Amino acid sequence: MQELKIQIKKFIQARDWKQYHAPKNLAMALSVEAAEIVEIFQWKKEDEALSPGEQEHLRQEIGDVLVYLIELADKFKIDVIKAAKDKLVLNQEKYPADLVRGKADKYTEYK
Amino acid sequence: MQELKIQIKKFIQARDWKQYHAPKNLAMALSVEAAEIVEIFQWKKEDEALSPGEQEHLRQEIGDVLVYLIELADKFKIDVIKAAKDKLVLNQEKYPADLVRGKADKYTEYK
Amino acid sequence: MQELKIQIKKFIQARDWKQYHAPKNLAMALSVEAAEIVEIFQWKKEDEALSPGEQEHLRQEIGDVLVYLIELADKFKIDVIKAAKDKLVLNQEKYPADLVRGKADKYTEYK
Amino acid sequence: MQELKIQIKKFIQARDWKQYHAPKNLAMALSVEAAEIVEIFQWKKEDEALSPGEQEHLRQEIGDVLVYLIELADKFKIDVIKAAKDKLVLNQEKYPADLVRGKADKYTEYK
Repeated sequence: MQELKIQIKKFIQARDWKQYHAPKNLAMALSVEAAEIVEIFQWKKEDEALSPGEQEHLRQEIGDVLVYLIELADKFKIDVIKAAKDKLVLNQEKYPADLVRGKADKYTEYK
Repeated sequence: MQELKIQIKKFIQARDWKQYHAPKNLAMALSVEAAEIVEIFQWKKEDEALSPGEQEHLRQEIGDVLVYLIELADKFKIDVIKAAKDKLVLNQEKYPADLVRGKADKYTEYK
Repeated sequence: MQELKIQIKKFIQARDWKQYHAPKNLAMALSVEAAEIVEIFQWKKEDEALSPGEQEHLRQEIGDVLVYLIELADKFKIDVIKAAKDKLVLNQEKYPADLVRGKADKYTEYK
Repeated sequence: MQELKIQIKKFIQARDWKQYHAPKNLAMALSVEAAEIVEIFQWKKEDEALSPGEQEHLRQEIGDVLVYLIELADKFKIDVIKAAKDKLVLNQEKYPADLVRGKADKYTEYK
């Protein structure tokens, strides 16, 4: 993860792209990459397999999402792994296992 | 990261939510969480600061995005860190630093 | 439609919100509302019905999407109905009925 | 609008695509098209103009969003224009003009 962060910084610096990477713009780019993942699945049946080509495409889009997520987080000194762990703890309280077990309707009330 | 992966798995298992977490659905959830990040910035000026409350909100949404990203990736045995590193290498070829330096229009032709 | 356009304008003017509604921001708001529609369906089976409450929720989010779409289009003097009709004509050429009939894979190559 | 609805129906029928157009899938497609609009603006300054080519691109994506919005709405017998008008009335109550005038922070508490 530390290595990846450094590679991202070097990539941006070498291209002088910092000027475009305001947090607002990174948030947009993140959502655009997430939508490219959605696009892969949009006409698929729930249990339909992805072709090898689609899996490679998915892999690349997942890479893009993580790059923008780390870049955005870094602007606010947020550690993405720590943020995810802390959110899981919050969700454990929000969704007590014995209350929500097997129920999606609880899940949709999330947020 | 390894620890986080295990925590996510336990969280899902304890709630019996695997049945809802088809890759297609995880892709949707990922994009919904990304949109919640966009929502934080939508009426802000490019250089407008976030309040402490908004930064905490952002931190939680970043956590959500990473959780769904890891869960989705895991369905296809994709290592998110490796995927991001590989994508950066691809982008380095796609956007030679000396050609695209300081140009956003190259960036918009991405994808 | 003409009536709706006027109502939107009055709504914005009465609140002095024009200053926030730059095209970029409207694009973000549009995608956030679209994501709220996605959220309704994210854990549903493909053929699972929506409850009356969910249908009303969907109806409101559809309203939000159209309001932002019209506002954004209006900034560029775009007639949304005409834009949709023209896009359908383009798609008719892009996807000749006798070539793509019943095939989703053509559809995923859309865009 | 009525004419557009009929053209959409014919377009789908001629291609036998109804089988792919479950409401869930249309919601996904809608959000993907909305993201393509976001992509046009993601690296732009707030007041940066779009080139003629970008404006035409925007026009086509707006067309796509409306087509999917109408198709999705139609599955639930929702009239999109009526839904937007009704939502504006709700928002008028939610955001009394004299309380929220000129304040974006009220706006972000929307939803």
